[in-house]
Amino acid sequence: MSTQAERGKKIHIQEVAPRDGFQNEKQFIETEDKIAFVDRLSAAGYAKIEVTSFTSPKAIPALRDAEIVMHRIRRNPDVVYTVLVPNVRGAQRALECNVDEVNLVMSVSETHNQANLRMTRAQSLDQLADVISAVRDSRVAINVSLSTVFGCPMEGDIDPYQVFELVGRFAALGAHGVTLCDTTGMAYPSQVARIARETRRLFPDLALTLHFHNTRGMALANTMAALEAGVDRFDASLGGLGGCPYAPGASGNACTEELVHMLNLMGYDTGIDVQQLLDIGAALPGMVGHDVPSQLLKAGPRSKLHPAPRQGN
Amino acid sequence: MSTQAERGKKIHIQEVAPRDGFQNEKQFIETEDKIAFVDRLSAAGYAKIEVTSFTSPKAIPALRDAEIVMHRIRRNPDVVYTVLVPNVRGAQRALECNVDEVNLVMSVSETHNQANLRMTRAQSLDQLADVISAVRDSRVAINVSLSTVFGCPMEGDIDPYQVFELVGRFAALGAHGVTLCDTTGMAYPSQVARIARETRRLFPDLALTLHFHNTRGMALANTMAALEAGVDRFDASLGGLGGCPYAPGASGNACTEELVHMLNLMGYDTGIDVQQLLDIGAALPGMVGHDVPSQLLKAGPRSKLHPAPRQGN
Repeated sequence: MSTQAERGKKIHIQEVAPRDGFQNEKQFIETEDKIAFVDRLSAAGYAKIEVTSFTSPKAIPALRDAEIVMHRIRRNPDVVYTVLVPNVRGAQRALECNVDEVNLVMSVSETHNQANLRMTRAQSLDQLADVISAVRDSRVAINVSLSTVFGCPMEGDIDPYQVFELVGRFAALGAHGVTLCDTTGMAYPSQVARIARETRRLFPDLALTLHFHNTRGMALANTMAALEAGVDRFDASLGGLGGCPYAPGASGNACTEELVHMLNLMGYDTGIDVQQLLDIGAALPGMVGHDVPSQLLKAGPRSKLHPAPRQGN
Repeated sequence: MSTQAERGKKIHIQEVAPRDGFQNEKQFIETEDKIAFVDRLSAAGYAKIEVTSFTSPKAIPALRDAEIVMHRIRRNPDVVYTVLVPNVRGAQRALECNVDEVNLVMSVSETHNQANLRMTRAQSLDQLADVISAVRDSRVAINVSLSTVFGCPMEGDIDPYQVFELVGRFAALGAHGVTLCDTTGMAYPSQVARIARETRRLFPDLALTLHFHNTRGMALANTMAALEAGVDRFDASLGGLGGCPYAPGASGNACTEELVHMLNLMGYDTGIDVQQLLDIGAALPGMVGHDVPSQLLKAGPRSKLHPAPRQGN
């Protein structure tokens, strides 16, 4: 396997729980808890942390404290602090908070874009072009996250050429990075390898991130396929926080500690110690008020040994 | 990815839920339910089904109806019906039931063998050699499942040469197949590729099965690595039934429907229709009296589409 030859290769781990996870929680996470959580993540070795979202507080009340959180976290110069930004107003708020990166979102699927963002794709493109114009001359990086790249829960299969065309549009507008998102866990390994490889070939200068969901159990298998295609940036969510509205009770985001656990065992350099992640993750059920999907939080890392049982029972 | 080139390759799916799953259930599964369950599995396209265990009814009361189940299932000539056999007495019972294969078990780890089987490895080898002698001249095939191949929850790392040595011993005794079991979910992809490839190189005439657990989320990622190494036989358990005693609340066996779902999407020929598996699996929570780990049972297959939400809410 080619991954055998990649021992020591740097893999950038990008944490999305504070935004993608907390946004989906019914119970408001206290601002102090959010800040303490991001501060602990900042010391764990991540390449990037998605801290919050500068959407309207009415649209997403769970993240209505975006400014306070961004202003009060202790920033580690080795970490890129990114925030979700839906429009020019959000971009201005983000710039005032001195973020390192803005993350723009739209969907490759027309139906999903309208369902999720209440706009046509054409309207989203216009709006995000305005955001890029507003940010482009600052020192702030621009990333675009494309939803439903590997399938739409309403439309089904997505033509990869629609993906490449959208990526090309954003590259032309000046985006620095693009994230291919498997929004509802429809990606499968051979598809991931094909789309990731082609995206890298067509857009070698864009920072490429893959964002998987574990809805159908394939998050780590898809990661394997992406690694084979040369991808070295992955989004993930501590505890697997962040569910999928189309699959009640099923897992949502790929789980950071499970991703890092596997990559470290394979000899990749994630820069992250799994035990530290598990220590931080152990606080999550208390913060969010429910169990989280992470298997590794329950089982512990591979290195955790157990005493031999007493004989005779 | 080399798997791209393998579209149409036959992969043998081997169901272990009736033995490995039911054995771990506290509540006795009614004999009629077991028979009906195996009969439904027999029509689903499996290569092999592990039906029950001919252990002492005192040791494993959950499977005390082994003879009745084996006698009363409707056998499909395209399916290999295998049973777990711990000793010569069990082998005699199995032969009387006209099984297609006996499956012998021991652990590569001395500590785990003693904890799980209450014998030293040397004692297990002697006992299983006697079983092989008793079966060898029949038309019944002999498979050996080795536990803790990829790590022991008590000893930690396992030297792969101990694995190869044990496989060699059983090959010399006349076993037809060997199953490398990741008993507690300690396997990781690069390790799987290495051990599977070397086992195939050293023992090209043995039918090689890989048996993964999803305890740390890696079952399908490990499957990818095994596929790359040329493996074409996999154990799995419908619903993910069969937990791990060292990880309360975590997943146990790889989930058959998630395995088949992924392999079918990648173009492999499993001979199994996922929807049929999901229909059979939907009865499991009722049979065992609790939720099962399968994500796919909750989320449905990738092909399941959802209506677009009504606008304006």
